[in-house]
Amino acid sequence: MTVGVWLVGGRGSVAVTSIVGASALRAGLVPGTGCVTELPEFRAAGLAGFGDLVFGGHDRVSTPLTKRAGELAASGVLPAALVRAVHDDLVRADADIRLAPAGESQAETAATLQADLRDFRDRYGLDRVVVVNVSSTEPLAAAHPAHATAADLNVALRRGEAVLPPSALYAYAAFSAGCSYVDFTPSTGARLPALAEIARRRGLPYAGNDGKTGETLLKSVLAPMFARRHLHVRSWSGVNLLGGGDGATLADPGANAAKSASKQRVLKETLGYQPQGAVRIEYVEDIGDFKTAWDLVTFSGFLGTGMRLEFTWHGCDSALAAPLVLDLARLTGAAHAAGRVGPLHELAFFFKDPLGDVAHGFAEQWQALTAFAAGLGAESPA
Amino acid sequence: MTVGVWLVGGRGSVAVTSIVGASALRAGLVPGTGCVTELPEFRAAGLAGFGDLVFGGHDRVSTPLTKRAGELAASGVLPAALVRAVHDDLVRADADIRLAPAGESQAETAATLQADLRDFRDRYGLDRVVVVNVSSTEPLAAAHPAHATAADLNVALRRGEAVLPPSALYAYAAFSAGCSYVDFTPSTGARLPALAEIARRRGLPYAGNDGKTGETLLKSVLAPMFARRHLHVRSWSGVNLLGGGDGATLADPGANAAKSASKQRVLKETLGYQPQGAVRIEYVEDIGDFKTAWDLVTFSGFLGTGMRLEFTWHGCDSALAAPLVLDLARLTGAAHAAGRVGPLHELAFFFKDPLGDVAHGFAEQWQALTAFAAGLGAESPA
Amino acid sequence: MTVGVWLVGGRGSVAVTSIVGASALRAGLVPGTGCVTELPEFRAAGLAGFGDLVFGGHDRVSTPLTKRAGELAASGVLPAALVRAVHDDLVRADADIRLAPAGESQAETAATLQADLRDFRDRYGLDRVVVVNVSSTEPLAAAHPAHATAADLNVALRRGEAVLPPSALYAYAAFSAGCSYVDFTPSTGARLPALAEIARRRGLPYAGNDGKTGETLLKSVLAPMFARRHLHVRSWSGVNLLGGGDGATLADPGANAAKSASKQRVLKETLGYQPQGAVRIEYVEDIGDFKTAWDLVTFSGFLGTGMRLEFTWHGCDSALAAPLVLDLARLTGAAHAAGRVGPLHELAFFFKDPLGDVAHGFAEQWQALTAFAAGLGAESPA
Amino acid sequence: MTVGVWLVGGRGSVAVTSIVGASALRAGLVPGTGCVTELPEFRAAGLAGFGDLVFGGHDRVSTPLTKRAGELAASGVLPAALVRAVHDDLVRADADIRLAPAGESQAETAATLQADLRDFRDRYGLDRVVVVNVSSTEPLAAAHPAHATAADLNVALRRGEAVLPPSALYAYAAFSAGCSYVDFTPSTGARLPALAEIARRRGLPYAGNDGKTGETLLKSVLAPMFARRHLHVRSWSGVNLLGGGDGATLADPGANAAKSASKQRVLKETLGYQPQGAVRIEYVEDIGDFKTAWDLVTFSGFLGTGMRLEFTWHGCDSALAAPLVLDLARLTGAAHAAGRVGPLHELAFFFKDPLGDVAHGFAEQWQALTAFAAGLGAESPA
Repeated sequence: MTVGVWLVGGRGSVAVTSIVGASALRAGLVPGTGCVTELPEFRAAGLAGFGDLVFGGHDRVSTPLTKRAGELAASGVLPAALVRAVHDDLVRADADIRLAPAGESQAETAATLQADLRDFRDRYGLDRVVVVNVSSTEPLAAAHPAHATAADLNVALRRGEAVLPPSALYAYAAFSAGCSYVDFTPSTGARLPALAEIARRRGLPYAGNDGKTGETLLKSVLAPMFARRHLHVRSWSGVNLLGGGDGATLADPGANAAKSASKQRVLKETLGYQPQGAVRIEYVEDIGDFKTAWDLVTFSGFLGTGMRLEFTWHGCDSALAAPLVLDLARLTGAAHAAGRVGPLHELAFFFKDPLGDVAHGFAEQWQALTAFAAGLGAESPA
Repeated sequence: MTVGVWLVGGRGSVAVTSIVGASALRAGLVPGTGCVTELPEFRAAGLAGFGDLVFGGHDRVSTPLTKRAGELAASGVLPAALVRAVHDDLVRADADIRLAPAGESQAETAATLQADLRDFRDRYGLDRVVVVNVSSTEPLAAAHPAHATAADLNVALRRGEAVLPPSALYAYAAFSAGCSYVDFTPSTGARLPALAEIARRRGLPYAGNDGKTGETLLKSVLAPMFARRHLHVRSWSGVNLLGGGDGATLADPGANAAKSASKQRVLKETLGYQPQGAVRIEYVEDIGDFKTAWDLVTFSGFLGTGMRLEFTWHGCDSALAAPLVLDLARLTGAAHAAGRVGPLHELAFFFKDPLGDVAHGFAEQWQALTAFAAGLGAESPA
Repeated sequence: MTVGVWLVGGRGSVAVTSIVGASALRAGLVPGTGCVTELPEFRAAGLAGFGDLVFGGHDRVSTPLTKRAGELAASGVLPAALVRAVHDDLVRADADIRLAPAGESQAETAATLQADLRDFRDRYGLDRVVVVNVSSTEPLAAAHPAHATAADLNVALRRGEAVLPPSALYAYAAFSAGCSYVDFTPSTGARLPALAEIARRRGLPYAGNDGKTGETLLKSVLAPMFARRHLHVRSWSGVNLLGGGDGATLADPGANAAKSASKQRVLKETLGYQPQGAVRIEYVEDIGDFKTAWDLVTFSGFLGTGMRLEFTWHGCDSALAAPLVLDLARLTGAAHAAGRVGPLHELAFFFKDPLGDVAHGFAEQWQALTAFAAGLGAESPA
Repeated sequence: MTVGVWLVGGRGSVAVTSIVGASALRAGLVPGTGCVTELPEFRAAGLAGFGDLVFGGHDRVSTPLTKRAGELAASGVLPAALVRAVHDDLVRADADIRLAPAGESQAETAATLQADLRDFRDRYGLDRVVVVNVSSTEPLAAAHPAHATAADLNVALRRGEAVLPPSALYAYAAFSAGCSYVDFTPSTGARLPALAEIARRRGLPYAGNDGKTGETLLKSVLAPMFARRHLHVRSWSGVNLLGGGDGATLADPGANAAKSASKQRVLKETLGYQPQGAVRIEYVEDIGDFKTAWDLVTFSGFLGTGMRLEFTWHGCDSALAAPLVLDLARLTGAAHAAGRVGPLHELAFFFKDPLGDVAHGFAEQWQALTAFAAGLGAESPA
């Protein structure tokens, strides 16, 4: 099975790291570290191999992938030797990263997006195409009546109205072109009733939102630990210092709010109550892609004794996100092939703010994911 | 069901905190924070209530419990008001903490221990008695041929030989008196073939070793996180600063070795390989009972990118241990009543170095524990 | 020499801790830990003894000092036994904490404040009275033309205009009543040309602003370390989690801005450039008076190699501030007696945002302070 | 003035980084970051320029400098581009790094060392030669009667006895060849009465011991902060994780003891008492040259309130040490030229365990250093 991976934000750090990584994995230059789907539990799931992935995408800028990869090597995110080794693959993929269209209307833009997706699928004869949003986080989008049903949405778009935030417009175009959709950001993406309806009618799966790469990943294992030891979490405060492209975006109060809420949700869901404290995101250019997150947890134990846990996470955002992008593309492509439709709740393992009413604890999410993979394997023709 | 809780080291901080806490819980003065068995999952397990627990024990010192509790209040481990409120209970329990016997031979000592246990059970008409070792950590014990079988052991003891480390002698006495045994320390306890044989023959359950209260608890949730995200842990180093009685003991190189090995085992078991690094235990008197553990984890992600996690755990050892002692007494008492025999693998959740070939990940241990509780509930006459 | 210490915010945590502490020191119940003026360098400075300090003040609330001290004991800031021991002194001081007046005009309020100060001085026959502002931080005050000269200010006040922020009104009243003034907060205080003029004319000294108790104290030793090792600080980011009364005030964006600017100033002054990064103050009620500050410093060394320093400061704000309040009262009272007039630059050691163009490095400030003390000693009649 | 820098351990990480750095500075490729002597305070001191430094040395291994520099670039210690840019200089210096001689007797070895030093000085027509020990830390050396006087020492050596640890043998050879000596390690070096006597007679200066690059640097600013705020340090515990060549050496208990004692000395000297706690050095290969030090300080403030400071220092050892090696060579060369004889107490700023009864606080050491530089400047012919 060949799977096209269409990256919205195809020249960003996460996208470039994903493309470089898939190339290196295909060539056997690196082990599968960081790729969940390379664990033994996924061997029988019938997922596309790294050699079966073809990359394309949209971006607002046109900096060549080779230049972006060089920059990432200079800042320590990618090994320079690896970037040199996959140079030809980057040049090839570059031709499939189109400039993000800006039509006269959202309907026109959507039409161009669909044409690009169909053309990509046809040219490479791809079995499935998964659209993955790895662009910058949007500000929280305003609600609009046209979001309610597919009919309302289509009427509004036909009238030339601009009713969708960009991430949702991509989801709309993806579904209209028969592609599945994954939102790796906290943006709206497919989370509108109208889009859910379209995906259902077209028989398409989708997943999201907001890749769980660092601090929230830790929360998803630590919060259950407190809960099951019956320790009472009194406050959980955090600060994220980051300097990459996403950092500047998230410093914007609107985006910050979206992200911060997504980051604390796991506590409420796992503990059953919301402790005091907040997560703050700060842009510090010098930090670059190596995000530093510091968290302080104050909690009560037996007889009310106060205690504390502090942690510092110093992770490379792109290196944490990129393998998950590959995982999600492989899993969603296989889910599509297996006829799964609608939100893929079983992929909650990968997200800060998963779709649906699912468990937020890491262990439960892992079980759901491996059961899902086993199911895919059972249905797989391979 | 009434359960006697016989504490080896009955005047130590953990024991005193357990007794004060059980009293306060019985009187409804505090919520069950820190007690795992007070979570909803254990409601139907038919466990003894806090009012059904009776405390006794052995200790080498004779400082009154009320004095020890006052000291713990002064150092912030116990709320002073609570200590005043349970004063009468402490005075009562004090009478049941016997001076640890030191017979002419181990056989004689064991006989006195058994007599004390039987007397305790008879005087209070207890349904079950659980012996819990919360005394100081012993140095690693030397192997001895008499440890191989019950027959060998009995012969050696009858000859007046001293072949058992103290913790194992307590286990021997417990089993001989028809009591179950829990080892909350890294000492030998029941972990000798001869003792396993005796427990089996007498139809007695036992559990251990080494209560998982802090750094190892964190490891048991963090290591599976790394494993399931396919991140490669390169090194995991830690230092534990502690100043309580156990700190001084553990500063002894022999005990330190026992404890440190027990603390790193979870990594090998969960990750499938042993990362570089070691755990060091340092005695710093001023730190007192509020242990500070610092850990540094270095790991590789996608394409080999190096990252780091650092955490500091500032926990009150007694406050973390005491509710688990109550949990273990309730669960082991119920297991005994339900006819369980031999090592209780399902209690691995509570231990750094659990008995048997069991999962070391926190989530799997939790599942095993709750399934166990459900099983007890199903069998329970209540 | 007797010195009256008039505390603006006389029932707040810092004030209460100061009063309790002075009482305990007078009675010889505690050593002088935390009091800089109890170091040998100040022995010959002719400062008032703790028995020569008399406390009074203003506050907006009327909660008895004994009650406030009890609360501080309950939260671990004050030892309960100490609070009991100084009970009578607290009752006595309580009578001298007046309700903050709210006149029809600022002129009227100022008149009442002056009358209170004169009455206090006369009743106790005090040699000097030092007004110390330890109330909550004000929002940044707007500039006003009447701040320019004493004449302009007096005209505006006589007209019934409200032109001064509260802290400046207290400074005005203090000077008008012949008292010196110390501002321990980042509020405006005496920092207006009109007030400087009045102090000068009346022959009065003053000091401020913003007591240096935690994170900034560390910055004032760490920043010179980087500078003198020629290491280039690229970013310095910090977060302060605090839950006391001041925390809630500082969570207000206006006050937060005032405080944060004051906290970063030391870097610019000491390093000669402003690194990236900001200080954020977050209110977390559960943290209480035990503020937790976390800072991350990224810096370059030889050949541009990037390195990092991280620190966590877990300090009790009131316990850090209170002895400095006593130090400042003793030193300012002695400076007044010695005829010092205008801003006391030599007290920069105590402040985040010191008056005048002074060194911000800790060592230079220490030298200036001890030279000042030596000077006082030389002039002192004792 | 030309200065020869003779590095004992000339192929180690610190030496190679020093040579690469001096080359890059000479060529104007990098700013002087990390070099203290590049600060304005040293401009008039008449120090040798980077172009006036010539490097040579001894080492036990013969790996080419270019290979060692390549390894350091691969592990992120040196920028790869810089290593390429100074390639020719490395090749040149390589020829002057001799294999460490191993004579039949120490007298014979010393004679070869002296010959190497004289040859180096003559070949390049150097004004001064400074021998700098940057080799691995030795185990604590045993005392020997021959250490007492120059006469005793010479007699013992002539007899063929091996009475000096290697570092002291180098100091002996340096002095005998008319060279000054700097010990950047905690080894014995020049710290023997016999060697002091020889240096004095020959009119030679020397400095040491143990370059202050990380944790101790922090202690030297933080300990005075506590002292001058009259805060009582109750415990100061630390752990150093390091993986470079020195790490493996220091893991040896003997060397560890030497280093740890040197690291705690600053506390006793600065605070006036020894707090509880110890420094532990752990070898973790994966950490490499980027040492991670974690320290916990517990202290009491006003009225005994307990507080805490924690810090993590993540520094590149070679990048911190190398510029100080250049500083020491320039300063010691200039001191030699200016006729200074004996231990250079004024260089205490650079050392963990400075020679003589000097101040251990960072600020005092800085003052002594800049006064020394000013003195050199005044005497300098330039």
